[in-house]
Amino acid sequence: MNGHQRVRDDEGSAARLLALSDGVFAIAMTLLALDIALPADLDPDGFEQALSDVTPNVWAYALSFVVIAAFWRGHHQMFRYVREVDGTVIRLGLLNLGLIALMPFPTTLLAEYGDLPQSVAVYSAAVAAMGATQLALTVVLWKRPWLGSTTLPDPVARNDVVDLASTAVVFAVAVPLAFVSPTGAKLWWAVLIPVKVLTGRRGKRLRAAAQRSA
Amino acid sequence: MNGHQRVRDDEGSAARLLALSDGVFAIAMTLLALDIALPADLDPDGFEQALSDVTPNVWAYALSFVVIAAFWRGHHQMFRYVREVDGTVIRLGLLNLGLIALMPFPTTLLAEYGDLPQSVAVYSAAVAAMGATQLALTVVLWKRPWLGSTTLPDPVARNDVVDLASTAVVFAVAVPLAFVSPTGAKLWWAVLIPVKVLTGRRGKRLRAAAQRSA
Amino acid sequence: MNGHQRVRDDEGSAARLLALSDGVFAIAMTLLALDIALPADLDPDGFEQALSDVTPNVWAYALSFVVIAAFWRGHHQMFRYVREVDGTVIRLGLLNLGLIALMPFPTTLLAEYGDLPQSVAVYSAAVAAMGATQLALTVVLWKRPWLGSTTLPDPVARNDVVDLASTAVVFAVAVPLAFVSPTGAKLWWAVLIPVKVLTGRRGKRLRAAAQRSA
Amino acid sequence: MNGHQRVRDDEGSAARLLALSDGVFAIAMTLLALDIALPADLDPDGFEQALSDVTPNVWAYALSFVVIAAFWRGHHQMFRYVREVDGTVIRLGLLNLGLIALMPFPTTLLAEYGDLPQSVAVYSAAVAAMGATQLALTVVLWKRPWLGSTTLPDPVARNDVVDLASTAVVFAVAVPLAFVSPTGAKLWWAVLIPVKVLTGRRGKRLRAAAQRSA
Repeated sequence: MNGHQRVRDDEGSAARLLALSDGVFAIAMTLLALDIALPADLDPDGFEQALSDVTPNVWAYALSFVVIAAFWRGHHQMFRYVREVDGTVIRLGLLNLGLIALMPFPTTLLAEYGDLPQSVAVYSAAVAAMGATQLALTVVLWKRPWLGSTTLPDPVARNDVVDLASTAVVFAVAVPLAFVSPTGAKLWWAVLIPVKVLTGRRGKRLRAAAQRSA
Repeated sequence: MNGHQRVRDDEGSAARLLALSDGVFAIAMTLLALDIALPADLDPDGFEQALSDVTPNVWAYALSFVVIAAFWRGHHQMFRYVREVDGTVIRLGLLNLGLIALMPFPTTLLAEYGDLPQSVAVYSAAVAAMGATQLALTVVLWKRPWLGSTTLPDPVARNDVVDLASTAVVFAVAVPLAFVSPTGAKLWWAVLIPVKVLTGRRGKRLRAAAQRSA
Repeated sequence: MNGHQRVRDDEGSAARLLALSDGVFAIAMTLLALDIALPADLDPDGFEQALSDVTPNVWAYALSFVVIAAFWRGHHQMFRYVREVDGTVIRLGLLNLGLIALMPFPTTLLAEYGDLPQSVAVYSAAVAAMGATQLALTVVLWKRPWLGSTTLPDPVARNDVVDLASTAVVFAVAVPLAFVSPTGAKLWWAVLIPVKVLTGRRGKRLRAAAQRSA
Repeated sequence: MNGHQRVRDDEGSAARLLALSDGVFAIAMTLLALDIALPADLDPDGFEQALSDVTPNVWAYALSFVVIAAFWRGHHQMFRYVREVDGTVIRLGLLNLGLIALMPFPTTLLAEYGDLPQSVAVYSAAVAAMGATQLALTVVLWKRPWLGSTTLPDPVARNDVVDLASTAVVFAVAVPLAFVSPTGAKLWWAVLIPVKVLTGRRGKRLRAAAQRSA
């Protein structure tokens, strides 16, 4: 079509991969909240105790919801102009979903055993792995413009790569850090807040510029 | 496009946000019912007892189903003409989903501990928060006509705002009320029935008028 | 559009109601199977015992899957030509989904306490209620041809009405029957098999005829 | 349309069957991971023990995720050009979904009782049954080209048939093998790896050739 020699193995429209992805994201988001539960048949005192014991689960839910929602938003932006998928995109996309579907487990670990190094390490590793697969997906889609209806401008793609690479690196560094200090590793996560504000603003500006010039 | 100077950061078609939303609504609706369950291996007497003990869970399910279904219908009307989403709409939409996904928890509280003030307060707060985010979403979409294929007529939008604001206010008032009287707070919820009948009829008439003039 | 005087309150395209419906059907289908489970940490003898104890759950799963799948297929046929939905269709459609979402409960009752009259009565009542709402939906859609891209031929619609009415009636009759004899009520369900074979064949023939003449 | 005499009973567009299928695939994938869980309120030693006890669940999750993801990819390729569905396709498609929805059960069996013959036999039987229904679906769609927008080239279809038949046969053979040696049956599964690599490469080449000639 546009002259490149590579053997292409397009496997059809992106619609179903996106439908499957939205399904997995939606279910993972909703199952996260199942952990917020009280045993039945408590007396009023036990009830108040159980209600306050459930607070860390609410916080863990809120954190993981924000994480998954941010990955969903990145996924949405990444596939915005994608029309076709090939074997590599499908395989990476499914790997990504396999990690998203796992999220309820590290979330529960963090809620129930948040002060133990292993919990913080498992949580960090899960988010780092999601960041890494989403990063790989971004690069693959960027380098295969023939899958899309339009070409993602290079500055936008580069900004997305920086954004996801910083997620993957910060959470990967938190894995060993958790064994030094679980609390330290959780504070270290907060390094991402200013990074995300910066890449978010840059992305918004670059996208607006791309839209004006289109 | 239509002369406004604001920097726009459209993030593409609304289709995937709606797919994710329908997924979260569908899962939350279905998970609500998981609470209606009997322990295994009961003798016939224990079975009859357990079957009658499950009745409040059925009522709580019915109530929460109606609440979520009403929010879904509002969501459907609100996004009827929306074609594009931007960062603000995505963020508010995801926040709304995060609250929808929580609903199984207050529903179980209400079923198991419906006579305790905290349960009624948590339930009321959850519904008030959903009403408030859906209200914010309605206002944002109304004020950004460039995201839609057509402009929502102002009277229709104003009626939707009144409808959602009344939900948010009635349930927010029920939070402190629950600590005075849990039963009183639950009766207070019923104030919404005539309000909803009125805004529902008005909305139907206004929508029909808008369709005729279109 | 076609001269009728009724005030119409179309609430937009049917796409999202169908997406929500497919979501609820898919989740209810999948949650049915969650009941097929074994406790952990059994010794080999306990394992074999537990594995054979799970057999009624497999049968109950198979039965409820067939029931929900048949309702889904009917839903699919019913909405085949529907393009728009109005308030009545949305309300009936949501009520139908609320009953579908309940199905895991009667299914578990049937698996665990299938020889008790209440279980068979609750299961029968649930299916009868689903049949009745789907019947109401069929009639409403048939009588509002302006919601569709084409008119469902009257013989096809009449055949669908007979099919759903027979489901509703057979299962409704099974409710009191269950208190006379639970096994009798379950055998009575089988009356539907020849009815379904007949309406199925007739439907196929009528649909083929409609397609040829179109 | 193309002269064949068969009475056709098309039941409309394939879109909803695919939406339902993506929903069931997504939920089955996500529910698989629910089994990876730790009891609450363990002391640090019990926590470490429980964390290492959960390892077989992670492996079983990974295996079943790969299996379901591979079936999804096959489903996606198979329905790539399909536009309409008829009664046979819907029935086979629903049967396939009923088996997919069951997968969490054999996965848990494998994780908790992976050294017992029955677990390996049940798992193998479940995968063999999914392979067989997906094979039947492939053949049905191949032989009914009028359901699609284009005709699947015969070599591509034949390669898909070989691929699915090998899955069904290898897992069917593993059922009796499991009673001789559970470990032997699990090693026997690995026979599929070279087969899948070969059919995968052949499929990619054939699809690329078909696209070039189109």
